[in-house]
Amino acid sequence: MYEGVVQDLIDELGRLPGVGPKSAQRIAFHLLQADPADVNRLVSALTEVKAKVRFCVTCGNVAQAEECRICSDPRRDAALICVVEEPKDVVAIERTREFRGRYHVLGGAISPIEGVGPDDLRIRELMTRLASGEVTEIIIATDPNLEGEATATYLARLLRPMGLRVTRLASGLPVGGDLEYADEVTLGRAFEGRRLLDV
Amino acid sequence: MYEGVVQDLIDELGRLPGVGPKSAQRIAFHLLQADPADVNRLVSALTEVKAKVRFCVTCGNVAQAEECRICSDPRRDAALICVVEEPKDVVAIERTREFRGRYHVLGGAISPIEGVGPDDLRIRELMTRLASGEVTEIIIATDPNLEGEATATYLARLLRPMGLRVTRLASGLPVGGDLEYADEVTLGRAFEGRRLLDV
Repeated sequence: MYEGVVQDLIDELGRLPGVGPKSAQRIAFHLLQADPADVNRLVSALTEVKAKVRFCVTCGNVAQAEECRICSDPRRDAALICVVEEPKDVVAIERTREFRGRYHVLGGAISPIEGVGPDDLRIRELMTRLASGEVTEIIIATDPNLEGEATATYLARLLRPMGLRVTRLASGLPVGGDLEYADEVTLGRAFEGRRLLDV
Repeated sequence: MYEGVVQDLIDELGRLPGVGPKSAQRIAFHLLQADPADVNRLVSALTEVKAKVRFCVTCGNVAQAEECRICSDPRRDAALICVVEEPKDVVAIERTREFRGRYHVLGGAISPIEGVGPDDLRIRELMTRLASGEVTEIIIATDPNLEGEATATYLARLLRPMGLRVTRLASGLPVGGDLEYADEVTLGRAFEGRRLLDV
């Protein structure tokens, strides 16, 4: 339908997550008419990322050196490890400024449907980190969905016998949300996790 | 928040139309973890498009040569010109297989708010094409919104004194749509444009 190279670009853009055929077409035409300097900036950002970004040998987070900025920061508490699924979860938690420990990125969650088992995640690397005996608490911050919960349960069973304190992020009503719009599962969790008001 | 080069990529992706900060982050992390060959294909599609795609000297559509595939196709009727706003409109019309004439891409629509006047569109180029006297009908297929209608009216006033048949695509109810969900303007247009049922 389109001139060959335009169609190639639309196809490549359509492979990106969350970009449907219509958006791919819209982005392609935008780039076609864009200033070549803008397109060059995008091309070099893509090239740079693939050339320079590695994954931290310790925690699996994105890094520009052998270790990521968090693992190489001596001010971060090495006794606390927060286990997350993906590097973007690290960013979300860092934004809260609540957590002063370190991270461990699993690279996904257990999902029998998608054929992801414990061996496909960075669980062995986590066990290696625990061998030093420095860690006292593992906070499991996998997603509050089926796969994330399965992963949390699996990890808890694995880690508790090692005498570690294993915790899970609280589930409940989102702050600023509206009770009547909460789904039943979330509302049920909010009841289960209710806390005493000390006033 | 992110390692420098990752943030650069997120920023560049966020400049694309329809890509918000969350999608940009999602796409960036997808590319980070993607096979380098996939990223290379995207990079070369981008580079190729900027290197090879030009705009047809005749109609303004995207082209890989001096003229686009439609303008250089002798089977297309040179007596009919369909005027559209953007190259993507050409593709939408081609998909219908209803039109066997040629196109003229204006490069936008008249919009006083965005400071786009008739001189910013490829109207002068259209007049040059008409000088040959070969064209008998101009079908105005600008968008059925404020800017598109203003452009259609402007062109009609300009072209009609030249003795050309100037037509506009029909407005009305979308096929497969539901009458009760049609907005008043569309429904009003559908009444205005009602046709005699010859049964």
